[in-house]
Amino acid sequence: MYSRRGIEVYRRGAAIYRVWRPAEIVNKTTTVAACFHRSSSSSSSTPLDALFPRHEDFSKRHIGPNGQEQSAMLEYLGLESLEELTKKAVPGDILLDRDLDLPEAIGEYALLKELEDIGSKNEMYRTFMGMGYHGTLTPTTIIRNIFENPGWTTQYTPYQAELAQGRLESLLNYQTMIADLMGLDVSNASLLDEATAAAEAMTLCQRHTKRKKFFIDMRCHPQTISVVKTRASVLNIEVVEGDWRELDLSEGDFSGVLVQYPDTDGHVSDFSDLITKAKESKTLVVGCTDLLAVTVLRPPGDIGMDIAIGTNQRFGVPLGYGGPHAGFFACRQNFLRTIPGRVVGVTRDSGGRPAYRLALQTREQHIRRDKATSNICTAQALLANMSAMYAIYHGPHGLKEIGQRIHNGALILAEGIKQAGHALHSSKFFDTVKFLPTTGQQHIRDKAIAHKINLRYFQDGTVAIALDETVGHQDLTDLLNIVDSPATPEEIAQQMGPNPQSKLLAPESIHRRLSSYLTHPVFNSHHSETQLVRYMKQLENKDLSLVHSMISLGSCTMKLNSTTEMMPCTWKEFSSLHPFVPREQALGYHHLLDELEQLLCEITGYDEICFQPNSGAQGEYAGLRTIMAYHQSTGEEQRNMCLIPVSAHGTNPASAQMAGMKITPINVDKSGAVDMAHMAKMAEKFKDTLACFMITYPSTHGVFDKDIRELCDMVHHYGGQVYLDGANMNAQVGICRPGDFGSDVSHLNLHKTFCIPHGGGGPGAGPIGVKAHLRPFLPSHPVVPPLGTFGPGTASFGSVSSAPFGSSSILPISWGYIKMMGPKGLRHASQVAILNANYMSRRLTGHFNTLFTNEAGFCAHEFIMDVRPFKKTANIEATDVAKRLQDYGFHAPTLSWPVTGTLMIEPTESEDKDELDRLCDALIAIRKEIQDIEEGRMDRDVNPLKMAPHIQLDIINSKWNRPYTMEMGAFPASFVTPATKFWPTVARIDDAYGDQNLMCTCPPMSSYSSDENGVEERAAV
Amino acid sequence: MYSRRGIEVYRRGAAIYRVWRPAEIVNKTTTVAACFHRSSSSSSSTPLDALFPRHEDFSKRHIGPNGQEQSAMLEYLGLESLEELTKKAVPGDILLDRDLDLPEAIGEYALLKELEDIGSKNEMYRTFMGMGYHGTLTPTTIIRNIFENPGWTTQYTPYQAELAQGRLESLLNYQTMIADLMGLDVSNASLLDEATAAAEAMTLCQRHTKRKKFFIDMRCHPQTISVVKTRASVLNIEVVEGDWRELDLSEGDFSGVLVQYPDTDGHVSDFSDLITKAKESKTLVVGCTDLLAVTVLRPPGDIGMDIAIGTNQRFGVPLGYGGPHAGFFACRQNFLRTIPGRVVGVTRDSGGRPAYRLALQTREQHIRRDKATSNICTAQALLANMSAMYAIYHGPHGLKEIGQRIHNGALILAEGIKQAGHALHSSKFFDTVKFLPTTGQQHIRDKAIAHKINLRYFQDGTVAIALDETVGHQDLTDLLNIVDSPATPEEIAQQMGPNPQSKLLAPESIHRRLSSYLTHPVFNSHHSETQLVRYMKQLENKDLSLVHSMISLGSCTMKLNSTTEMMPCTWKEFSSLHPFVPREQALGYHHLLDELEQLLCEITGYDEICFQPNSGAQGEYAGLRTIMAYHQSTGEEQRNMCLIPVSAHGTNPASAQMAGMKITPINVDKSGAVDMAHMAKMAEKFKDTLACFMITYPSTHGVFDKDIRELCDMVHHYGGQVYLDGANMNAQVGICRPGDFGSDVSHLNLHKTFCIPHGGGGPGAGPIGVKAHLRPFLPSHPVVPPLGTFGPGTASFGSVSSAPFGSSSILPISWGYIKMMGPKGLRHASQVAILNANYMSRRLTGHFNTLFTNEAGFCAHEFIMDVRPFKKTANIEATDVAKRLQDYGFHAPTLSWPVTGTLMIEPTESEDKDELDRLCDALIAIRKEIQDIEEGRMDRDVNPLKMAPHIQLDIINSKWNRPYTMEMGAFPASFVTPATKFWPTVARIDDAYGDQNLMCTCPPMSSYSSDENGVEERAAV
Repeated sequence: MYSRRGIEVYRRGAAIYRVWRPAEIVNKTTTVAACFHRSSSSSSSTPLDALFPRHEDFSKRHIGPNGQEQSAMLEYLGLESLEELTKKAVPGDILLDRDLDLPEAIGEYALLKELEDIGSKNEMYRTFMGMGYHGTLTPTTIIRNIFENPGWTTQYTPYQAELAQGRLESLLNYQTMIADLMGLDVSNASLLDEATAAAEAMTLCQRHTKRKKFFIDMRCHPQTISVVKTRASVLNIEVVEGDWRELDLSEGDFSGVLVQYPDTDGHVSDFSDLITKAKESKTLVVGCTDLLAVTVLRPPGDIGMDIAIGTNQRFGVPLGYGGPHAGFFACRQNFLRTIPGRVVGVTRDSGGRPAYRLALQTREQHIRRDKATSNICTAQALLANMSAMYAIYHGPHGLKEIGQRIHNGALILAEGIKQAGHALHSSKFFDTVKFLPTTGQQHIRDKAIAHKINLRYFQDGTVAIALDETVGHQDLTDLLNIVDSPATPEEIAQQMGPNPQSKLLAPESIHRRLSSYLTHPVFNSHHSETQLVRYMKQLENKDLSLVHSMISLGSCTMKLNSTTEMMPCTWKEFSSLHPFVPREQALGYHHLLDELEQLLCEITGYDEICFQPNSGAQGEYAGLRTIMAYHQSTGEEQRNMCLIPVSAHGTNPASAQMAGMKITPINVDKSGAVDMAHMAKMAEKFKDTLACFMITYPSTHGVFDKDIRELCDMVHHYGGQVYLDGANMNAQVGICRPGDFGSDVSHLNLHKTFCIPHGGGGPGAGPIGVKAHLRPFLPSHPVVPPLGTFGPGTASFGSVSSAPFGSSSILPISWGYIKMMGPKGLRHASQVAILNANYMSRRLTGHFNTLFTNEAGFCAHEFIMDVRPFKKTANIEATDVAKRLQDYGFHAPTLSWPVTGTLMIEPTESEDKDELDRLCDALIAIRKEIQDIEEGRMDRDVNPLKMAPHIQLDIINSKWNRPYTMEMGAFPASFVTPATKFWPTVARIDDAYGDQNLMCTCPPMSSYSSDENGVEERAAV
Repeated sequence: MYSRRGIEVYRRGAAIYRVWRPAEIVNKTTTVAACFHRSSSSSSSTPLDALFPRHEDFSKRHIGPNGQEQSAMLEYLGLESLEELTKKAVPGDILLDRDLDLPEAIGEYALLKELEDIGSKNEMYRTFMGMGYHGTLTPTTIIRNIFENPGWTTQYTPYQAELAQGRLESLLNYQTMIADLMGLDVSNASLLDEATAAAEAMTLCQRHTKRKKFFIDMRCHPQTISVVKTRASVLNIEVVEGDWRELDLSEGDFSGVLVQYPDTDGHVSDFSDLITKAKESKTLVVGCTDLLAVTVLRPPGDIGMDIAIGTNQRFGVPLGYGGPHAGFFACRQNFLRTIPGRVVGVTRDSGGRPAYRLALQTREQHIRRDKATSNICTAQALLANMSAMYAIYHGPHGLKEIGQRIHNGALILAEGIKQAGHALHSSKFFDTVKFLPTTGQQHIRDKAIAHKINLRYFQDGTVAIALDETVGHQDLTDLLNIVDSPATPEEIAQQMGPNPQSKLLAPESIHRRLSSYLTHPVFNSHHSETQLVRYMKQLENKDLSLVHSMISLGSCTMKLNSTTEMMPCTWKEFSSLHPFVPREQALGYHHLLDELEQLLCEITGYDEICFQPNSGAQGEYAGLRTIMAYHQSTGEEQRNMCLIPVSAHGTNPASAQMAGMKITPINVDKSGAVDMAHMAKMAEKFKDTLACFMITYPSTHGVFDKDIRELCDMVHHYGGQVYLDGANMNAQVGICRPGDFGSDVSHLNLHKTFCIPHGGGGPGAGPIGVKAHLRPFLPSHPVVPPLGTFGPGTASFGSVSSAPFGSSSILPISWGYIKMMGPKGLRHASQVAILNANYMSRRLTGHFNTLFTNEAGFCAHEFIMDVRPFKKTANIEATDVAKRLQDYGFHAPTLSWPVTGTLMIEPTESEDKDELDRLCDALIAIRKEIQDIEEGRMDRDVNPLKMAPHIQLDIINSKWNRPYTMEMGAFPASFVTPATKFWPTVARIDDAYGDQNLMCTCPPMSSYSSDENGVEERAAV
């Protein structure tokens, strides 16, 4: 039994346990300092620097409030300085007593110059390796108007559907595109990548059939097999890897089979028999396929498969050394309600007009904790949107032309290979030609290297060449030269004539696609650049993003994503690298990854960073699996209990469940902090099985709880590991380090604290940091060894993503942020984030109650605003306040999480005082509106809150007959003016209707007819 | 006397006169073909191309209507094919009977690759040459969110102020910035460059004082002196160049003096005596100065100067090998009404709310023809806006820091030069240090070249080094090394201490700036990136641009400006080159200029292109001066009569007047064509003095007049030259060539036909094409010889721009367009442009009368729609229709030009049929609204047309009491929906009020108080 007195005892014990740490810290900091000669040689105190400063201070651009505003806010709080605030808000026993040992801040232009140098170390070979990654030609207008446009990149996940109809429409286009191309009924709105999509398919099969075995064909891509096996290993699923031709389904014990076409060798199989047998044995068939291939090949649905998965990368999403891309997942209608990830659906608004929203939303936003079937939170919205726009721009005919052209190229190449005397692996290929060179693999490889071309080399001496839409005549010529073809492309084309024989696409081939796709008008209306630009802008302008106003989502850290940070992501040196190129061609990337690791280690106090996880939830999963592997290594396999406070983010228990852990919730006390007595009791109770304690810090309640060090010590005392959820890292950087006060693992949401934009719901990046003892157990990769080479002692638990380093191409954003802020800027940012939250909380005092603060009365970088009392007094709920905020031009804060019926506000350091004041003014004005209801001056059912948000169709209406003016509806405050008014485009979403009438592909145009949207009718008045 | 019969005679004569032409054409085409080996080796008919096409067809992205739509429109017109249309619309005797001999179209990605290769030929030296061009650090967020954002670049000139309040506000910020920094009362909204600003200042002085002499100091930049002298030479102004210290003003015969500080040697003079004397003699003083210098130096206004001019380039506008930048022009209040160029002013709208608009607009849009004082049309709006945002981002303190830092750098450099023993030219310098090296100039030059650094080398052996904000510590170190300084920057800084002695900025210096600047809140509110991005987006979203809907401005060719065309403009290889670097460092640029010249020659039938003119009007001026120089060379100096049809664009007579010509208008007949009899009469009348005939083709009436060849022949017969205004080139490319049917010179508005975006009123590019006999007389440049090296036979008339090749950095746009379209695509584009215009004209038949067509009933690429009858029938004028179109989401067509009371519509080829139909539907709906008035169903004074445009403040108003519904005001057609509704932000502009109450700097914030904009008041209802 744990007692207060006991602390002292095991604290000393824990100190011994952690004896390696200080040394590690010293080592790490020495390393970091030594790594940045250029910058650290600069001291800002020389006479030259005084006369002729090196650069402008980026942190002044990043941090919203200027010095004057900071002083005013401090004064408002009765404080002298940011340092005083820090001491009031953060427990003294975890405060970092020194500056972070990071290189001094560099300027924006110096950063770009350095990045150019780093990028130039990446060698631009032509890469025809395939394996799920292909060169692609992103239409430049999509790059510029979506990927490089803050109007698209700084959107939040579309939970507030009324001001997110643009990206919801685009995601619905995406879903329609995937479902159409796959010949299936429905698609989700994207997953992280192909491999995790495969893993999700596996668990869906298991849920559906309740069977324990799952078959995966050996000719799937190796990274897919790896992730599937990793996931299965703790889920009581037996994965059988083998040759599907030899598979016996007659026992009826397989939940599903996963086969791929074109397979990793490029071959396209005829699965008819397998599918017939599967149907007989009620086994589900999952087809992994290729978006371009199915423009000409029969798609999974047409063949009879149940589920289709893959990657959208080659639809205009740059390679980016592995990501971010998007995985797709399509299935038959009957799986719709168990489909993993987000699904956009069509519903109606309060006026009965069609509207889009995230369907089945409760499943996600309030993740079903330990009942979860998946821990998916971040998707790849921005990339899914890019690929949908790619399809819209090309249209079905254009896509088919691209597919046919690539196939023709492969036919020409194969003919040359044949004529050179090599043995073709298969005659049924789409774009990937595999062969056994008569001249030996090394001969081919030498010639390829001389041409600066990467091919895929198998251990058995075969070679594969995968063509893509970037391939031109010169590439074909060079490739034929490499394979010693006696004929040139021109000669082969001449021999072939206009209708080359294709085993796959001949009229009689069963592989030839017969069904049509992308017949919806949206895919047939925007083929000129003018049309596409207008369509993209039209959607963009429906959506509120950071270019309009602050998005104060608690726990989501919607801060500035600066242009300079974003720029390198679209430089070809970073965007065009295949993830499996030899390491020596990616030295720029590895330089950057190494540096970023060192920077993040110093910031967190960890010893190693693994970049593989593509999202926070993936990071959680990877971290927990690492912990489990650690326990196994020490012979304590029985340690599988995860303690999680009830206030935790839903992904925490979901990830723990997926990692094969058992979960025990820990109570929180009235102050919102972990109930130490309960914690002690549970830790004691599970002392033999305690695997880990998972905690968010500062807490999800927005407070730096004072007991964090004690909690960590307690966990260690009982043999557990501490997983600190890094979601709230934005309050800690430069102030305290999880690695110092007792955490063993954290994921870092680079898309929160470290400035990767949210992209309307992805991409994300969730690398994990670990203490040294966990290092050997970190994720690995079957194709590319992960960061740091693992010796024989490696005990990696497996892999979590398709790509070895996750979403590599957005990592320069975080790297750039840290380098430009420097140690002082980073700490300053954290302090201002805390200042902004406390200022807002204080300004709202008297109007709304802040639920939790620490003993000194201060919150961390966010706070929970209570609106529950108004349900009784005025029939007003948190949702009403959230929707009414839209009328004031603001996105709602986090709604009903972590406490139902409340709003959690996180302003971040990037918002200036004026913007904070505007949001406060809006909330105070809303409070007055509530008071009008409370005091009978306004109707309890028809009032500006209940009817919010107000849209033009409702306001501009001659029949307006509400008990308040149209001006109150549209312009409720002096700062809401037509010049800056953001209009939601649909009224309040009817979720219930949408759930009852699930529709997840583009509705026919007729559903927008005039009588439904009411425009024409009223215009005729 | 001219007679029909006579034609035959001189036609033969003219054929002899033009005997060189066919040969030239052959030569040129051979040359062009020979120059494009790579591309022309590709024939699209090979078997390989059939199987494996080289690239996607860009012309399908550029041209709006697809094949089906084109067929439908042709059918509507009763035509079989585009070829038939072409024959109906274009006179047979000018039709080109072959394809343009241009390289085959290349794809977008191949183009970018080729541009990378070309760009890599530009060598990236560090350049410290000064001379009005300086390195600058454009804030990346301004590059991305303005210069790379079609929402800003595709705006038209803000004539329709109600939907242009964003850029008008930005331009007003610009004017305020310039006026503030100069210490003067008012500024215009930018001119083309510093040199033309100087020339405009000279003519203003002349107009004001009526004196003929103008003094220019010899220490102005050579290009400024050159342009001023060129302009003066035909305006009866005597320019005296000399040393201002020796100037005697006592005669009172000088209109003005132009002096510069810092001067071209970097020295800052004390002009007190000069200014005193000037005031005594009522001579105006024009100061040419530097925006950064005056952040710390006393500005022209404070010194007592009357006018200030210069360039805004170093305020964040990339060097771009010379442009586009913007010239500034500020002056005292009393010159406001004669200030050249556009001026944005504050006025009020019909509701009395403050609103921005182009003040004194009549002066510009309906240029005062031969009474004009200037031919300015295009300004540099986009660049002016960028520089204003630069100032907004830095604020007054940030700018001062930049200025001080550069000055400190110069002090350090000068100290090193002194310590090395060289003789400083002056001790009063801001950023440019000139010295006589004891070691000889060549020694310095060799060391600089070894460091890849460009300095300015004078013929007298001196050297100048001009520092800028890009200079870093390493640059200082290298520069001190080059000058053999014994001390490093660090050592010198150490010696200097924290307060280095500055002759200019010492407390007692008369040069030190004492007055404050940029005190308006707009310059003190957007210093964080979040703030600036929101401000830029807020302004962008007030403005209608091509991202919203078609902008059918007749004669302005608002077509697609594709991303791929735009991309290279911001690549550093094109954007960072100083215009005066040695030619061997700019080989990429020269490769591109040479190619573009060949392409344009083949398209137009001319023999040489000169890229120096920055705008169409400058092109006109340059072309006319070239003609005049030609006449002089043949001993016919008396030829100074310019015949211009009355239908011509106002810039034509304005340019002719500026070129020193006399002007005789030529009548047009009822069909809108040139009155041949009148023309013949005038040609005969002025046969001895006929210099040229200036004509737009197809005509400004939107018709391919049949007599163009005859007209040209007639002019040549009488010894004149033909100037064909290239504004309507978009109807001719690939169909006919001005050089073939008799024109001698044209300017080409690259910002119309050749895809450079309009940028909200600039940049433009107006290169001129000439026949070979005019070649020797083309513009030259005092620093860099222009395209083609001129031998001793050169007879250039002078220079027209600061930069040798004008707006070089946007030329890749036009080059890319031509390369990607290829000969077939270009011809197709012209044909579709004609098709779209005829389709619209036909669809509107029965509703509106098209004023002019040819005999077959066809217009060219634009047409004039008559609305004059409605003045009588319904009290409706063209303006009412134009403003009402805003409610339908459209920018008005060209208003009241060339025929008062009409609208001229040019749809361009980039608009698809749906968009054309929407505009037709809108116009037809408006016609019905007019009918409602005509037939008494709607009030003649208060109706949707008279009250247009409708803004939110008027519509969303509980007191709405108009005799039509608010829905009719806001959503007048079914396609106008809230999802796509574009809201003007102010109601109809009150021009009269603005003209009476001219206010041309940012109004104080108090003018926006709530009672004026009415929001708060009404929200409280």
